[in-house]
Amino acid sequence: MNIQILGAGGWGLAVARLLANNGNAVRLWRRGADKLASLRSTREEPRLLPGVLLPAGVEVSPETDPDADIAVFAVPSHAMRNTLMEHHFSQKTILVNLAKGIENDSLKRMSQLMRELTGSARIVAISGPNHAEEVGRDLPATAVAAGPWEEDRDAVQTAFTGRTFRVYTSPDLTGVELGGALKNIIAIAAGVSDGLGLGDNAKAALMTRGLAEISRLGVAMGADPLTFAGLSGMGDLIATCCSRHSRNRAVGEQIAAGKSLAQILADSVKVAEGIRTTRAALELGRRFNVDTPITEQVCHLLYDGSSPREAIATLMARDAKPERG
Amino acid sequence: MNIQILGAGGWGLAVARLLANNGNAVRLWRRGADKLASLRSTREEPRLLPGVLLPAGVEVSPETDPDADIAVFAVPSHAMRNTLMEHHFSQKTILVNLAKGIENDSLKRMSQLMRELTGSARIVAISGPNHAEEVGRDLPATAVAAGPWEEDRDAVQTAFTGRTFRVYTSPDLTGVELGGALKNIIAIAAGVSDGLGLGDNAKAALMTRGLAEISRLGVAMGADPLTFAGLSGMGDLIATCCSRHSRNRAVGEQIAAGKSLAQILADSVKVAEGIRTTRAALELGRRFNVDTPITEQVCHLLYDGSSPREAIATLMARDAKPERG
Repeated sequence: MNIQILGAGGWGLAVARLLANNGNAVRLWRRGADKLASLRSTREEPRLLPGVLLPAGVEVSPETDPDADIAVFAVPSHAMRNTLMEHHFSQKTILVNLAKGIENDSLKRMSQLMRELTGSARIVAISGPNHAEEVGRDLPATAVAAGPWEEDRDAVQTAFTGRTFRVYTSPDLTGVELGGALKNIIAIAAGVSDGLGLGDNAKAALMTRGLAEISRLGVAMGADPLTFAGLSGMGDLIATCCSRHSRNRAVGEQIAAGKSLAQILADSVKVAEGIRTTRAALELGRRFNVDTPITEQVCHLLYDGSSPREAIATLMARDAKPERG
Repeated sequence: MNIQILGAGGWGLAVARLLANNGNAVRLWRRGADKLASLRSTREEPRLLPGVLLPAGVEVSPETDPDADIAVFAVPSHAMRNTLMEHHFSQKTILVNLAKGIENDSLKRMSQLMRELTGSARIVAISGPNHAEEVGRDLPATAVAAGPWEEDRDAVQTAFTGRTFRVYTSPDLTGVELGGALKNIIAIAAGVSDGLGLGDNAKAALMTRGLAEISRLGVAMGADPLTFAGLSGMGDLIATCCSRHSRNRAVGEQIAAGKSLAQILADSVKVAEGIRTTRAALELGRRFNVDTPITEQVCHLLYDGSSPREAIATLMARDAKPERG
């Protein structure tokens, strides 16, 4: 298949390599003459994925192909709207979202933005436990391709599935996108817990309650509760909360160490989507009347400078009661 | 309350300390004159929990108190039957199981053994993400107390809940015991994955499928599916698969490094319950007609010396299909 990739961050690069190695003709869109020339000649982005080289099957180009079979959007959530407005694809092109976030203000999931701005009905989201650092090195990984139309998610599954990357399909676009976006909030909290040295028991409890919080909000928004027990829910949550590759977990660790959000943002090359998503999720919880205690504490930590130790203590110390009370 | 503890392993010691610090009168049963004298004078078991001291509220004794309000069984699963036959308690004593295993041959859960051998109807199991190394140092942790009678699980909850240890209650004794026992099998597989350097994406996928496998078997055996999404299911699974404290995960790492089961057993001080539980779970899967692919592979690894790399490859490489297919 002819595949256009928009976004040359870590995940965009790893996916470009994967799709080309699977035998697809891949074009990677890259803005800026210098960056374009550098990526074309070295085939590598050492700041993002050192040692991972783009194969010959990836063409790096400043222009996008409007007739691609699949257009893969690998940009951060806050850049999705502009990217969709700048690039246009035919109605036969399947649009694939890789971003794991929710747009602030509109509170829209990425596929909702895609639907609204392009008018296309052929939309699929891919989400799962997928650190680019590992997929870029052919370590085994799995993901879920979710969308309303079976033929579209099957086509995407075929393009992405390779020897070490296995893609499963699901009709639950809402649940798959929400799992990917909301888990970043829990990963920030897990990073705070790690940063404070609270141990593996506390973190496991936090993650368990975190997935319950994600599921509550997701189900209120129309997702299938079983989706959150799958690879794009529990799987991605674990990969994000327990890995040294996770940027969101790292944000939590820095907060525990006393850094302010401004300092953290100033020091980071890579985007931690959870920072923005926390605000959107808090607002969604209010709108759908769902209790989101972890999201609330993370929001206080990020934006109100509250004490990490108190925030975690608030989450751990709840009255003795039945587990599901 | 007057509490008798049977078993002075790491978890028995940590629980003795916890219960005494909560204001209970605790008697810890210890066999063998030398070991008894040493624990009485030093108040510490440096091989098991270095630096964790038993407070004054713990009496170490070679005899058990048959009239205790609560008798806590903190012995390994394979020692449960003998321990129950050697020590007798009044019908008012609440029997608490802390072991996370299934008896080989009989395929009974620990509370079933307790019921059968004592005739008591007052039985509660406590399970959750609880590394003794952390609870013994007052790091925050949570657990679930499960049993058929509300007054009994509430009494146990009251005795165990303290400033840093929070206990929730559940009527699902079957689900809580199975989650604690079966997660050790998945932890062995996770250790193999870690040992082979397969990365965080692969391990997260394995754990997600592992919890699905545990839930399938548990539900077939009468458990509530929601229990496996809670602290004693997902929570304990995460704490066991992701922690350096986990003995079962360590067994998997050693298998990946090429050690035989005989070598591993010869080298270890602490009991990894998963080794025995794997056989019992495989048999339960057959009896209840439930597919248990991870348990099967772990069983081959432990008992048939199959290749770790092939076992994990078999688990990762499944046909492209819908996620819940």
